[in-house]
Amino acid sequence: MNRLYHVPLSPFCRKVRLSLAEKKIEVELVEERYWEGDSEFLRRNPAAKVPILKLDGRLMSESAAICEYLEEKHPTPPLLPASPELRFEVRRLVSWFDDKFHHEVTTKLLYERVNKKVQKTGYPDSANIKSGARAIKYHLDYMTWLLDQRRWLAGDQMTLADFAAAAHLSSLDYISDVDWNRSANVKDWYAKIKSRPAFRSILADQVSGFPQPAHYSNLDF
Amino acid sequence: MNRLYHVPLSPFCRKVRLSLAEKKIEVELVEERYWEGDSEFLRRNPAAKVPILKLDGRLMSESAAICEYLEEKHPTPPLLPASPELRFEVRRLVSWFDDKFHHEVTTKLLYERVNKKVQKTGYPDSANIKSGARAIKYHLDYMTWLLDQRRWLAGDQMTLADFAAAAHLSSLDYISDVDWNRSANVKDWYAKIKSRPAFRSILADQVSGFPQPAHYSNLDF
Repeated sequence: MNRLYHVPLSPFCRKVRLSLAEKKIEVELVEERYWEGDSEFLRRNPAAKVPILKLDGRLMSESAAICEYLEEKHPTPPLLPASPELRFEVRRLVSWFDDKFHHEVTTKLLYERVNKKVQKTGYPDSANIKSGARAIKYHLDYMTWLLDQRRWLAGDQMTLADFAAAAHLSSLDYISDVDWNRSANVKDWYAKIKSRPAFRSILADQVSGFPQPAHYSNLDF
Repeated sequence: MNRLYHVPLSPFCRKVRLSLAEKKIEVELVEERYWEGDSEFLRRNPAAKVPILKLDGRLMSESAAICEYLEEKHPTPPLLPASPELRFEVRRLVSWFDDKFHHEVTTKLLYERVNKKVQKTGYPDSANIKSGARAIKYHLDYMTWLLDQRRWLAGDQMTLADFAAAAHLSSLDYISDVDWNRSANVKDWYAKIKSRPAFRSILADQVSGFPQPAHYSNLDF
């Protein structure tokens, strides 16, 4: 049986979940509380983080490498375009969200508000939350600018770049940290991606201690 | 003219420099003091970081996306193997070094000792340096374990994984933070990679305020 070891609000896990679902690769989701340092999990994954995908008998870590592998082994439907120039733009944006957005926004909001409580590592730092709340505005404006020129973030087709962005934003939306009124463009884009069948499992996520807000799974948010 | 905007000791720039040199793509190196917030540079690159590659009239950021693009446009010599399984392993290791090693070692040693001084952002934090000095040992041991089973880090051919690892280690070697006596395997691997023509420009780097140590460019170190 294929398995994905994950935590529900991890954007890196969500990106992989979206790719798997879009490509109709069935996996069993197993929640992995990796911070508890269970040695069986560390054996599976010396990097000690999620996601870990067990697929065709192999254990795979690193979400970027996993998504490229899925694309090469299961090219339909494609989540990377055909030309090197467009593929570059997709990968640039995936890195933008998984590196820059992650560092400036996700770690400052989600990790402060949720991970610290769940992992019992302290209390939210208000300077970080302020900094994340400021930074997300610039990122939403950057997305607005991209979506002024394109149907999807990296061009005319939906790609991994959209999944990377939606993975971060959906996790932040779970804690009501996304101001959807800031940009009609971004809201329309998120409505489109949210209504895909691949998104259903993400909209059904529940995190103990953090009740799902009403708008989170509502397609008409 | 093709150009790479870079800083000499950035491992992400070095990974791209190695790929370009191995593929014999000529570029002019332009040092970019990105922390000084020059608006012309920010215009070229909203992510405000290096490397930025100007190639065939396009400006490209994000080292992972750049290396994949170079591989697709200039496949000879290959820095990714042919099979999806082996390609996965290369990308997994690139992420290992650019994410985990970077976070646990490079930011703790190089950024504390060099970047803080060059960018005038404070003094080295001794707790960070201690933590980096401890972590690099585990990483060298992990590399030893990989090289016990393989000629190169990801398998039987030299790949981007070797360049990612060598980019971090060479930057740390510039400040004498690599204990080459810890592992004969790792030392042999580094000697092989260091003697390649693609490595020459990296061995010639000089950073003002940080004189190059004698062993750094010595092939018999």
